[in-house]
Amino acid sequence: MNAVTYTERRRVLREKVSDGAILILGNAEAPRNYADNVYPFRQDSNFLYYVGVSEAGMAALLLPDGGEVLFGRTEHPDDLVWFGPHAILADHAGAAGFTNTAFMETLPEKVRQLQAGGVTIHYLPPYRGDRSLELGRILHIDPREVAQGVSVGLVKAVVAQRSVKSDAEVEEIEDALAVTAEAYRAVMAATRPGRVESELVSGLQGVALAHDRQQSFNPIVSVRGEVLHNTSYANTLADGDLLLVDSGAESRRWYASDITRTFPVSGSFTPQQREVYEIVLAMQTAAIEAASPEKTNRELHLLAALTATQGLIDIGLMKGDPEAAVRAGAHALFFPHGLGHMMGQDVHDMEDLGDAVGYEDGEKRSEQFGLGFLRMARKLKPGFVITIEPGIYFVPALIDGWRSEGRFVDFICYDRLNDYRSFGGIRIEDDVLITDSGARVLGSGIPKTVEDLEAVVGV
Amino acid sequence: MNAVTYTERRRVLREKVSDGAILILGNAEAPRNYADNVYPFRQDSNFLYYVGVSEAGMAALLLPDGGEVLFGRTEHPDDLVWFGPHAILADHAGAAGFTNTAFMETLPEKVRQLQAGGVTIHYLPPYRGDRSLELGRILHIDPREVAQGVSVGLVKAVVAQRSVKSDAEVEEIEDALAVTAEAYRAVMAATRPGRVESELVSGLQGVALAHDRQQSFNPIVSVRGEVLHNTSYANTLADGDLLLVDSGAESRRWYASDITRTFPVSGSFTPQQREVYEIVLAMQTAAIEAASPEKTNRELHLLAALTATQGLIDIGLMKGDPEAAVRAGAHALFFPHGLGHMMGQDVHDMEDLGDAVGYEDGEKRSEQFGLGFLRMARKLKPGFVITIEPGIYFVPALIDGWRSEGRFVDFICYDRLNDYRSFGGIRIEDDVLITDSGARVLGSGIPKTVEDLEAVVGV
Repeated sequence: MNAVTYTERRRVLREKVSDGAILILGNAEAPRNYADNVYPFRQDSNFLYYVGVSEAGMAALLLPDGGEVLFGRTEHPDDLVWFGPHAILADHAGAAGFTNTAFMETLPEKVRQLQAGGVTIHYLPPYRGDRSLELGRILHIDPREVAQGVSVGLVKAVVAQRSVKSDAEVEEIEDALAVTAEAYRAVMAATRPGRVESELVSGLQGVALAHDRQQSFNPIVSVRGEVLHNTSYANTLADGDLLLVDSGAESRRWYASDITRTFPVSGSFTPQQREVYEIVLAMQTAAIEAASPEKTNRELHLLAALTATQGLIDIGLMKGDPEAAVRAGAHALFFPHGLGHMMGQDVHDMEDLGDAVGYEDGEKRSEQFGLGFLRMARKLKPGFVITIEPGIYFVPALIDGWRSEGRFVDFICYDRLNDYRSFGGIRIEDDVLITDSGARVLGSGIPKTVEDLEAVVGV
Repeated sequence: MNAVTYTERRRVLREKVSDGAILILGNAEAPRNYADNVYPFRQDSNFLYYVGVSEAGMAALLLPDGGEVLFGRTEHPDDLVWFGPHAILADHAGAAGFTNTAFMETLPEKVRQLQAGGVTIHYLPPYRGDRSLELGRILHIDPREVAQGVSVGLVKAVVAQRSVKSDAEVEEIEDALAVTAEAYRAVMAATRPGRVESELVSGLQGVALAHDRQQSFNPIVSVRGEVLHNTSYANTLADGDLLLVDSGAESRRWYASDITRTFPVSGSFTPQQREVYEIVLAMQTAAIEAASPEKTNRELHLLAALTATQGLIDIGLMKGDPEAAVRAGAHALFFPHGLGHMMGQDVHDMEDLGDAVGYEDGEKRSEQFGLGFLRMARKLKPGFVITIEPGIYFVPALIDGWRSEGRFVDFICYDRLNDYRSFGGIRIEDDVLITDSGARVLGSGIPKTVEDLEAVVGV
């Protein structure tokens, strides 16, 4: 990716949104416990996509006449002293293909002139409070009114463009996956009874840090895999536990990766664990094999749900007609989340842009428990990168709640679930590229079958 | 620290600010690249000090009649499913010594009632954009006007209270230092030519992560120690380089540590490096030995500057009368930053509260280059924890600039500096408790002398 890439991306965007100016605002530093103590900087993904510069306090303004201005920081005479030799605004402009630059302080006045000329300023929804304040300042509106003014047309144009990944973007994702694969190998080798989850987190993040990469998201490393929103790392691993690791490093140019593996702390699956594991693997295999253009992601999700239901009937935890069970949503006791999501510059790609990413125009999310959590339902196209991440979990609170309400007693064998109360959860996730004819699992492979996992865990 | 600690801290605060209500607003989650992809949560330090609960979206309201209300998140029925068993608002209230709780949604109306009754709402300066928006919402004012309404009286009261550390707080800092010491031992052992800086960052942060701790700040790990604001980790270590590492882990209850060591990549100082190292160590030793109640931190800073100047005269890099050189600020070519800062719940403790932390009422920062960067000038008191972190750097851009302007030609031997253009920089930093009679370096010790460092680096 170079100046030509970014210039071309902006040209395509301007063609789709031709009735005004487009403002792409970069991120500022994110304060941790005071203004100057900041989190590791993460540029806004839209700014990365159209400009490619990872520096705080910038903006790109695309003008109706085809002009483009890159706004950035004024250099202070002492900057060379404090920061050493570093890229300045002119360097960033060259790298991003801009011929015009200006200092950020001048942006509000430039916008005022455009507004005075009747030019609409299209902008994207902010997701950080300070960006709402900054957009208010730039657009001369109350920051509390910024959200209402977001450009629906710009959102749709960006989603359409960012959804289809170029070969160079797929290479970036595979670059991220190479680091993630190394991290998984390290964690699998280090897993054994007596270790604390945080020690494995250290090994996992340590691999990414050694490559100077950040995480795409805060990793899940837990023997309580059934707790889906779990970023505590305090448990000690015990013989008999399953460890669920959901993690991914970013690429050099800040593309995401997102992998989940679940494996036994002891290095050997129990017969009960193995039975459930094979069902989850079958769910994933079925979805990957079915993934192709013109299929919808909802169909893949429901195929995984059906595979789960058949498997759970086979081992005596569900009963009745599997298709009827899935239509009713009974499988969601075990598989309560969606099959996956779009992935790219963000791990949940473009989640800041809302449901336009995963749902067709006018299409609504299901209100059914489980299916309603599906982030991506729309028709797949070549160039989409999605995660395929089915799981089966035994959540005591959910089992008890449903049982007490008598939900789906025709489909769920509640009595048999007593043997699974401490089972935990299993999820298997890969990142998948939709091709012209089908799908390709990205990356060079991380152990996934029972045999492959047993060969590497704790070794 | 327990409910009694926090209750007593709030009682003391209310005594000092008795003319109204006090609002202590906790932090929300900090979005990285979209709302739900967040940075590791860091609670606001004032909230930690007075409430001690590290959970997003809370507030404490201390009422004029002595009542106290802890505001927190409403539980959703599905929370047990997604988050597993977890502490809820009532648990937090118990841990923090509150008898009354309410949901955050009700806070604006509660404040409106107080305002209608003529009660002033004292609040502290926000440092995150989203907190300005939230304070605006709670206080029924435009978020752009939040900064003007900050309570100067509350700021002063908090600074007075948080400045003097209890024994329990000092224990927390030493707990943080124990992890930091382990991290330094790991980094020193791993240092050798051919390693990349990021690989050492991985080892350093890896130790903290294994203990489930965050960093107090983004570490500096660089062979370009003369670049003071340096968080790039791309250089490969070479024989002859000095590696500067400035880093610290947080304690279990989120107190900071902040240590700097500089050591040779090869494991042996060159004669030139050793000469400068001994000067920096002498600067630090002099300041630590002089540190005691009634001394001002400005005096310690100037003592370190004088020690530097004398040492630099001895090795032929400066000349003339050392006291006159320091008065003029000539030493700042080599020692351009302040000697240190207050440390506690924050690494720059209470930096969100401004210069009230380091300067007496009415006292202004110096306008001299170097001395003007001193964060802490005020008189020391028993219970203060400060960093003592002198350094000597050879910054080519600064040397060239001063030389071309003919600055301090009577004090600086510019011709001799040609031999030091690639030297880099040396800083040595420890965390020091001011006691009744003097000062105590906190922690159990991290190699610091030339001999001790040479014995452990690369071994």
